[in-house]
Amino acid sequence: MGPIYATRMSTIPKSFIREILKITEDPEVISFAGGLPNPRFFPVGQIAKATSDVLSGADVSALQYSTTEGYQPLREYIAQRYLQKNGLAVSAEEILITNGSQQGLDLIGKVFIGKDDRIAVERPAYLGAIQAFAVYEPLFCPVPLLEDGVDIDRLKNVLGKHCVKLFHTVINFQNPSGISYSQHKREELAKVFEQHDAVVVEDDPYGELRFAGVAPQSMRSWLDGRAVLLGSFSKTIAPGLRLGWICAKPEIMDNLVVAKQASDLHSNSLCQRIVHQYLMNNDVDRHIETIIAAYKKQRDVMVAAIEENFPAEVRFTRPEGGMFLWVTLPERLSALKLFDLAVREKVAFVPGTPFFVDGGGTNCMRLNFSNADEDIINEGIRRLGRIMKSLLAGG
Amino acid sequence: MGPIYATRMSTIPKSFIREILKITEDPEVISFAGGLPNPRFFPVGQIAKATSDVLSGADVSALQYSTTEGYQPLREYIAQRYLQKNGLAVSAEEILITNGSQQGLDLIGKVFIGKDDRIAVERPAYLGAIQAFAVYEPLFCPVPLLEDGVDIDRLKNVLGKHCVKLFHTVINFQNPSGISYSQHKREELAKVFEQHDAVVVEDDPYGELRFAGVAPQSMRSWLDGRAVLLGSFSKTIAPGLRLGWICAKPEIMDNLVVAKQASDLHSNSLCQRIVHQYLMNNDVDRHIETIIAAYKKQRDVMVAAIEENFPAEVRFTRPEGGMFLWVTLPERLSALKLFDLAVREKVAFVPGTPFFVDGGGTNCMRLNFSNADEDIINEGIRRLGRIMKSLLAGG
Repeated sequence: MGPIYATRMSTIPKSFIREILKITEDPEVISFAGGLPNPRFFPVGQIAKATSDVLSGADVSALQYSTTEGYQPLREYIAQRYLQKNGLAVSAEEILITNGSQQGLDLIGKVFIGKDDRIAVERPAYLGAIQAFAVYEPLFCPVPLLEDGVDIDRLKNVLGKHCVKLFHTVINFQNPSGISYSQHKREELAKVFEQHDAVVVEDDPYGELRFAGVAPQSMRSWLDGRAVLLGSFSKTIAPGLRLGWICAKPEIMDNLVVAKQASDLHSNSLCQRIVHQYLMNNDVDRHIETIIAAYKKQRDVMVAAIEENFPAEVRFTRPEGGMFLWVTLPERLSALKLFDLAVREKVAFVPGTPFFVDGGGTNCMRLNFSNADEDIINEGIRRLGRIMKSLLAGG
Repeated sequence: MGPIYATRMSTIPKSFIREILKITEDPEVISFAGGLPNPRFFPVGQIAKATSDVLSGADVSALQYSTTEGYQPLREYIAQRYLQKNGLAVSAEEILITNGSQQGLDLIGKVFIGKDDRIAVERPAYLGAIQAFAVYEPLFCPVPLLEDGVDIDRLKNVLGKHCVKLFHTVINFQNPSGISYSQHKREELAKVFEQHDAVVVEDDPYGELRFAGVAPQSMRSWLDGRAVLLGSFSKTIAPGLRLGWICAKPEIMDNLVVAKQASDLHSNSLCQRIVHQYLMNNDVDRHIETIIAAYKKQRDVMVAAIEENFPAEVRFTRPEGGMFLWVTLPERLSALKLFDLAVREKVAFVPGTPFFVDGGGTNCMRLNFSNADEDIINEGIRRLGRIMKSLLAGG
């Protein structure tokens, strides 16, 4: 008898983040590590009201098995919102409801990635995507991120050298870097993929959390059916409901639906109804504005605290939205060493290495600013600055 | 550029059942096709109450990201129930909450099955398991079911000839056949697997729906950690909540948790809390007794109607629980042809072929008795009997 587990189990990176989250269970730890929304803005009462509305009628189908594609009125709402917010004409039939974006990534992996297929990812890349895709044993081709999106020349180089199946991008306020693609960069990206058959996976969980500027166009507006979009209610309503979606053209949808059915038949019927009812009962745009105002302030507090407390050689991004910023330490400093010292001082963050599929990022770190309130942010950044200075002084 | 989709997409059987379910959307069609619980017994009011209890407290963690393993009090409840109902000593740490049993099957496929690995399944097999496992491109070794469980000699033969990674069994009131493993058959099965390294996947969504007799022992009571158990709240509470679980020893759990995290981070937090609160608020055993009494009556009605209306040559199982019975027509009759004629008379069922990974079952059919009320069952079986008789008469 050979090994009992499939070989893919050895290729999935064990999540360092899971280990970190265990540390942050200690309520005394100031955590910039997770990717949690601020629970102050969960619409608890409105969710309770929506549930009561859903369950008070004669229709009990919210508790029955339902279609793999998802609750039709919710699919229609999402399609309608793409038109309203992004000017994208998308039909409800192109929307598949998933268990958060993470399942969207898994289903895309299932449908497209065979062993040793090449896929292009950002460098650094979203860790959840690395994990979801790694299950299907691809060869990762990381392409460096610049300040306004991926390095187009390096991307062309990768696409010219290899047969690449898909390119995964977190296009707005990237996790982990906080970087957003400029309109110009998107146009360039579209030109590149007009020449290639690869699918562009436009992963956009944070797009609605924009603090400044105007949203540039979705890749779908140029690439049409070859851009597969991922969205989520986790950051705008609540992650515990585990609801997101994939938007893909009909042919790809057919495959995704087969994969989804084999994976878990369909997403939670009750929560699909609850979210739809919540959206009907409430002004979600106003709710999102409240979240934006709070996160913008939290980002401002974190940026100001970093400017005041971190050594001058430390560089960092100033994201225009989302939940994360990215810190680059002087090369001689190790973020892992900083992490060990920080945990002793009861502050946690995610060191950069797990976001790099090819090693690297040892002097980088991701800081989350959405979960902690302002005083806590100030205190945590102060402690981190103190440790950095002591490390730089050779202490 | 090669083919855009992964090869696995061509190995997943397209679900004939999905096509059938489209036919049954017509409210005039009498459907014995689906595997739906009777919605009359959904505890709608109690679910509403439980939700209101969960969301009325100060703790908003029901809406936040949570641990991959699942809500700890729910895991403890399930472990406790294994002890109480099956005499199995299982710790909460051996329980992983999944999106119904179907995701349990997918995760088991992900963790264990490599391309061209051999796995043993029942003949006929549960279609959801075939679909979930097919994604991972195994070679299926079907082992015939006898009246009291799998054919042990044929199983030994398969295990002797091939290196088999796992054996999947729906041990109580099998889907599609309605067959249950006798205590004696389980003992024999345990003896066989004591000699082999293969994992026994004991899939048991219907075990609590027993109309008669005493529940025999779980395979885990002999095989300990080499039996992986799957359970579900879909048949006892409601399937729309999409909650089930895997019970596995710690080493296997570690792998399942990694696979689950890559798949969708964790199952719906809100519904895990709701189900737990429902279980705390109510006497679920009494609720299950109500379902059992109703389904037993529906089975009795269906069995009596078959005896009265089907031709004498037709054989069928008389399940002691669950939701399905299995009909074997005379070999010269095609269940597919019967299906086409039945749909014209507005009755639907599932023809046998999709349950056979190696072809066969052309003269078999699965009938669901849980979803339809008694009058409907009588009328549907009458129509089927009429068509059978006309076919046998060469009409």
